[in-house]
Amino acid sequence: MTCLLVPAVACAARAPAGHKTTGHGHQQPKIGVTRGVRSKVSAARAGMDGGAPPAIAPDAVINLELGDPTMYEAFWREVGERAAVAIPGWSGMSYFSNAQSLCWFLDPEFEREVRRVHRLVGNAAVDDGYHLVVGTGATQLFQAAMYALSPAGAQRPVGVVSPAPYYSSYPPQTDLLLSGFYRWAGDANAFDGDAHIELVCSPNNPDGAIREAVLSSESSKAIHDLVTGHAGARLGWALVKDRDVAKKMVYFVDRSTIGVSKDSQVRAAKILAVVSDAYGPGEDDTRLRLFDFARRRMGERWRVLRASVAATGAFSLPEETAGYCNFTKQTVAAYPAFAWLRCEKAGVEECAEFLRGHSIVARGGEQFGGDARCVRVNMLDRDSVFDVLIQRLSSIT
Amino acid sequence: MTCLLVPAVACAARAPAGHKTTGHGHQQPKIGVTRGVRSKVSAARAGMDGGAPPAIAPDAVINLELGDPTMYEAFWREVGERAAVAIPGWSGMSYFSNAQSLCWFLDPEFEREVRRVHRLVGNAAVDDGYHLVVGTGATQLFQAAMYALSPAGAQRPVGVVSPAPYYSSYPPQTDLLLSGFYRWAGDANAFDGDAHIELVCSPNNPDGAIREAVLSSESSKAIHDLVTGHAGARLGWALVKDRDVAKKMVYFVDRSTIGVSKDSQVRAAKILAVVSDAYGPGEDDTRLRLFDFARRRMGERWRVLRASVAATGAFSLPEETAGYCNFTKQTVAAYPAFAWLRCEKAGVEECAEFLRGHSIVARGGEQFGGDARCVRVNMLDRDSVFDVLIQRLSSIT
Repeated sequence: MTCLLVPAVACAARAPAGHKTTGHGHQQPKIGVTRGVRSKVSAARAGMDGGAPPAIAPDAVINLELGDPTMYEAFWREVGERAAVAIPGWSGMSYFSNAQSLCWFLDPEFEREVRRVHRLVGNAAVDDGYHLVVGTGATQLFQAAMYALSPAGAQRPVGVVSPAPYYSSYPPQTDLLLSGFYRWAGDANAFDGDAHIELVCSPNNPDGAIREAVLSSESSKAIHDLVTGHAGARLGWALVKDRDVAKKMVYFVDRSTIGVSKDSQVRAAKILAVVSDAYGPGEDDTRLRLFDFARRRMGERWRVLRASVAATGAFSLPEETAGYCNFTKQTVAAYPAFAWLRCEKAGVEECAEFLRGHSIVARGGEQFGGDARCVRVNMLDRDSVFDVLIQRLSSIT
Repeated sequence: MTCLLVPAVACAARAPAGHKTTGHGHQQPKIGVTRGVRSKVSAARAGMDGGAPPAIAPDAVINLELGDPTMYEAFWREVGERAAVAIPGWSGMSYFSNAQSLCWFLDPEFEREVRRVHRLVGNAAVDDGYHLVVGTGATQLFQAAMYALSPAGAQRPVGVVSPAPYYSSYPPQTDLLLSGFYRWAGDANAFDGDAHIELVCSPNNPDGAIREAVLSSESSKAIHDLVTGHAGARLGWALVKDRDVAKKMVYFVDRSTIGVSKDSQVRAAKILAVVSDAYGPGEDDTRLRLFDFARRRMGERWRVLRASVAATGAFSLPEETAGYCNFTKQTVAAYPAFAWLRCEKAGVEECAEFLRGHSIVARGGEQFGGDARCVRVNMLDRDSVFDVLIQRLSSIT
């Protein structure tokens, strides 16, 4: 089974990650799922979607527990009208987008732009007989992939594992319906069974580590996890080499939601076209280059974060990693979408609780099957929120 | 547990059905699911979405196996620009639509228009403390409802039943993941257990019968099934009286797809606003009145179909039913979205196979747990397809 999956408009958030994993796409295609996360909500986030960032009060709680990629609103506001879509009332009334296609609910223009952006970035073998399957977020496709990869006629559900620390939503998403086909089996490093499905998140959520599968057997399958951009569109896609696996994934999406929003596909096609056009011949407006924007902003944020963490001495971060980027043709540092922050203060056993005392909401390490002295902090929120994060971390000594 | 669910822009297709069930909404709120269906595809349907209806060749197969509501494209083309939406590239990037809401991924404007259209039609008690939950089609909400209604800590999955003939997608949708919480248990009339969930489709898919739950016990739950309009939007909603049930349904949608397409919600809000505005004060352009259009067109189609069936003598249809409509304040006939056509010709055991010989694809009765001499025929396709259906049925003697 060979398959690669990335969320729609993923390049927005995954520019660095995308570069890092460029080689893997060709050498070892995988199935992957979104890093989209959601949990309890703070007042600071209320009503911010799409609006201008409000001023944040000195005592306001900032919620960085989630993976909201709102940092990119500034880029798309700069791009302006050319990224907008207009949808007439009469369009998209049918269940069908392409009746002749294996994935009958896949919008043909969206498919063209997905293949085009992969050719541009060079991180997927889109022209090598891969079938494209669209889903309601990569979250649905990750479930479709587990469904398609579960052994037929098994006596018991196949185990689904991932090395700790793993994405905290894997266990509840996998076991949502207590499926007879698959069941969460915990830390891959503690797994001693045979047949299994391993979830390989690279760069890893929460700690940004570059990963390959740690388990392998005749009957093992790997599902790789990439990142997300226009989160509200709830759109993801899979490039699937094996036709039967693709058909099973299409069947799953059909039965669970009878296809995928056409409106989101129309919109994603436009967003992806703007992304690719910006790197095309004759386009020299650098403000339109999403990957450049992402790399520059994420680089700045990581430098600021590492400087403030080094200054306080109260925290630590994973070492910076680097790798060769097939897109920019150079070795680049990784700037993950999340920071895996560890509290080094004596007496602090739970970093999440400690930070909450400083009005910072982050997700505790224990939820990732990891160290409670660590927290996962979203690096993709708006500048106004990120700046407050740095101010507050710097004040902790 | 009191809850009512209808698919987004449902009124487009459910004008007659909506009227028929008006009273039920108040007297006996239920959970309901979409009638969206999909199966194998014929050449006649290829590439028709949103485009002008192509001429249908004399030997072309027409596919009426599905519930595509493309009849309404003509209405929305007439409405024109006022039903269009423009979505800027920077909007909808966050997972959140309303962080303070129980349903955090529900667009507030979409919620306002849903409650407004229910007040207009008078088929749901939207102002009586009901929580609104949005889903990726009512298909997802039907699964969310089964998840929320399944008894906690049960020894085995609760049985899910419906009286035959039942919607043919109920069994495969219910058992998609072989859930430990619920399992398809077949014909409600043959069910002799206690705790169960009954799917009550009214007007019934496939035969248009007006239904109430046939089973009842201390531990029984009913889920009611209404119909769909802008199918490609993959949007449905539930009005849920019980806060805990609503919270469980929100949790299900969160874990299965991390919310619902914002783009579809923005578009549905506009479509619903146009529908309600057309019946508001100061608006006298009758071309904008969707329910009038639906009632007129469906009435014409049913009259033509019944006349041609009566003329050939080769088929029969269920008797026409009627009921009081709270919206028009009069007794009206029901014009179901599907025709449950029975072949009366001697020697024909499978009506679907017989019609396929006349280049008509319809879904065989046995797939609904019913009579193979019956087929379900879509009544909501484009005029060009419906006209060919009538020509071909009339030629069979």
